[in-house]
Amino acid sequence: MTSTQYVPQRVAVKELERFIDETLLHCGTDEASATAVTRALVTASRMGTDSHGLRLLPHYVKALEGGRIKARPAMAFTRRMPATGHLDADDGFGHLAGYTAIEHAVDMAREVGIGAVAVGNSSHFGAAGCYALAASEEGMIGMAMCNSDPFVLLHGSQVPFHGTNPIAFSVPVEGRSPYLLDMATSSIPWNRVQQYGAIGRTLPPDVAADAGGRLTIEPDDVAALLPLGGAQFGFKGAGLAGVVEILSSTLSGMLNGFRLLPMGGPDMSTPRGIGHFFLVVQPQAFTDWVTFQRGLKEYLEDLGSRPALADREVLAPGDREWRCQAERDAEGIPMDSANWEAYERLAKEVGIAPLREC
Amino acid sequence: MTSTQYVPQRVAVKELERFIDETLLHCGTDEASATAVTRALVTASRMGTDSHGLRLLPHYVKALEGGRIKARPAMAFTRRMPATGHLDADDGFGHLAGYTAIEHAVDMAREVGIGAVAVGNSSHFGAAGCYALAASEEGMIGMAMCNSDPFVLLHGSQVPFHGTNPIAFSVPVEGRSPYLLDMATSSIPWNRVQQYGAIGRTLPPDVAADAGGRLTIEPDDVAALLPLGGAQFGFKGAGLAGVVEILSSTLSGMLNGFRLLPMGGPDMSTPRGIGHFFLVVQPQAFTDWVTFQRGLKEYLEDLGSRPALADREVLAPGDREWRCQAERDAEGIPMDSANWEAYERLAKEVGIAPLREC
Repeated sequence: MTSTQYVPQRVAVKELERFIDETLLHCGTDEASATAVTRALVTASRMGTDSHGLRLLPHYVKALEGGRIKARPAMAFTRRMPATGHLDADDGFGHLAGYTAIEHAVDMAREVGIGAVAVGNSSHFGAAGCYALAASEEGMIGMAMCNSDPFVLLHGSQVPFHGTNPIAFSVPVEGRSPYLLDMATSSIPWNRVQQYGAIGRTLPPDVAADAGGRLTIEPDDVAALLPLGGAQFGFKGAGLAGVVEILSSTLSGMLNGFRLLPMGGPDMSTPRGIGHFFLVVQPQAFTDWVTFQRGLKEYLEDLGSRPALADREVLAPGDREWRCQAERDAEGIPMDSANWEAYERLAKEVGIAPLREC
Repeated sequence: MTSTQYVPQRVAVKELERFIDETLLHCGTDEASATAVTRALVTASRMGTDSHGLRLLPHYVKALEGGRIKARPAMAFTRRMPATGHLDADDGFGHLAGYTAIEHAVDMAREVGIGAVAVGNSSHFGAAGCYALAASEEGMIGMAMCNSDPFVLLHGSQVPFHGTNPIAFSVPVEGRSPYLLDMATSSIPWNRVQQYGAIGRTLPPDVAADAGGRLTIEPDDVAALLPLGGAQFGFKGAGLAGVVEILSSTLSGMLNGFRLLPMGGPDMSTPRGIGHFFLVVQPQAFTDWVTFQRGLKEYLEDLGSRPALADREVLAPGDREWRCQAERDAEGIPMDSANWEAYERLAKEVGIAPLREC
């Protein structure tokens, strides 16, 4: 994109953890909130999910300072039935809500085979994959979903209705990293429009629309994203977004995403009332572990041995992310100048040691 | 498509039920199998899901006669944990397996909040939506999934790997028909390629590929479907198909779909060993019924009041199907001449009264 080679600064995983955790604690959060946000942001940044990684910290600090997010929430879990529960997140961090809900769901799945938790009164939780992954770290299949404020058209409609409503799904695989699908139900995320706009690049066709709902590839004209499937098959992406919406907001007693305050503000003081849904499945509740792992191994071998198109690779969901994680764990996590400067400002504002380059 | 107006023959719902049920019983099936297949095929045909409706009966009769499907299976359900179970379908009809599994899942969801059943040693089960819907008839949220033999490319690959691996999701809505999403994880179903080929119509772009994995719109050249999302975002459709695969086959201890015998034969004697996965969620296990229904109502009202594009309509998943069902319940289910003739032949072969037009 540019003729001079841009070499981003890099930060080691431990140092990034230190910085995020200290920043949040200095903003008054309790340790559980700081730990959860740090874990989620660093997990996303290590995997290369930069849209949901370290870049979000300055936003979260604003939300804390404005009062939208409570620094010391009193989250309350109610186990309503043996396999289900509701977590009232008390307007705290969505990341703490997510990890807390997954822990309860894992416990229930150990006991009765499946556990599911609907979370209400929550906030942005970063990357959905973090929570699905947390279940797989316990040997479980995990699913995570979340609604958001409207960015995405319904099929055949002119104006945004659903959020990018992500679905994440993680399966523990012996001897390798989990099978991890973490996808928005739109074709592209909202921040890709902004990124492409910033570098003067046009969007792919069939992924975004202008204020009249007409397809556009010009980032400046984009008023909404199309659901996965585009202008012709977007009823599928929109339907999946609806599943996420119903499980995340309706089942938790929250408002649907169309009625949510926008993530970006300007109101940074009113809690948004986001909902999440988490489902944890114990594989051994259906078949024995050895059979399950043998089946998974065969499936992944069959998948990996399909011939690829020229200059392409056939990957399982997550493979690209695990590769990125190995590289970033070794070389450090790259930070562009905007993020580096934002972190420098944060360090001064909250009074902690600045981020050390690796 | 044609200059002379083609008026299909129509059959009343009751008469279609009579015909399918009698055909199967005359082929030696037990009553439970005949009832289940009849229910599923008629449900699909009433809703307009013609690819998975009455047209499948002659195929099923062949599978019975060949021995691929057992007419009188001894299906065995094992409740492995309070929220989970495994159903061995004993190579019987997938439709009986599906309705049986959903009944068990509903029972478990009543008791512990969620119920899930993995089904193994099963066969084609028709439309996934039938089983999700059966859960909603009991006031529950239902999900149904199934793997199938390979028709769909992996992202970046040249050859088919996944089946069209459908996901169905149904939510009970007070005072109206359920919210019902029933979607393949490819953009189009396989039989649309055949339909378009038969009438000399080209396919939409970005939904199908030739034997080298290259995009094509010519039905005659099609060797595989693309996953939902097409050439650029098909990693999402392929990832969803993988979720369906893992839950349907790996969790039930079956072979993955890539290794399944093809539905179309020529081997009609070897059982295929298809897997399904069903999940039932009791809404009251998360929030109270009134709050849940109020949220759903508001969501559907918000959805329905979004402005549509010119000459378009904004619909919730299932709306089109319920409209079709009302029309077909009143006017009869249309049958094209190929299906009508196949049913005439069937009546003679098995020795039952021919289908009566309405």
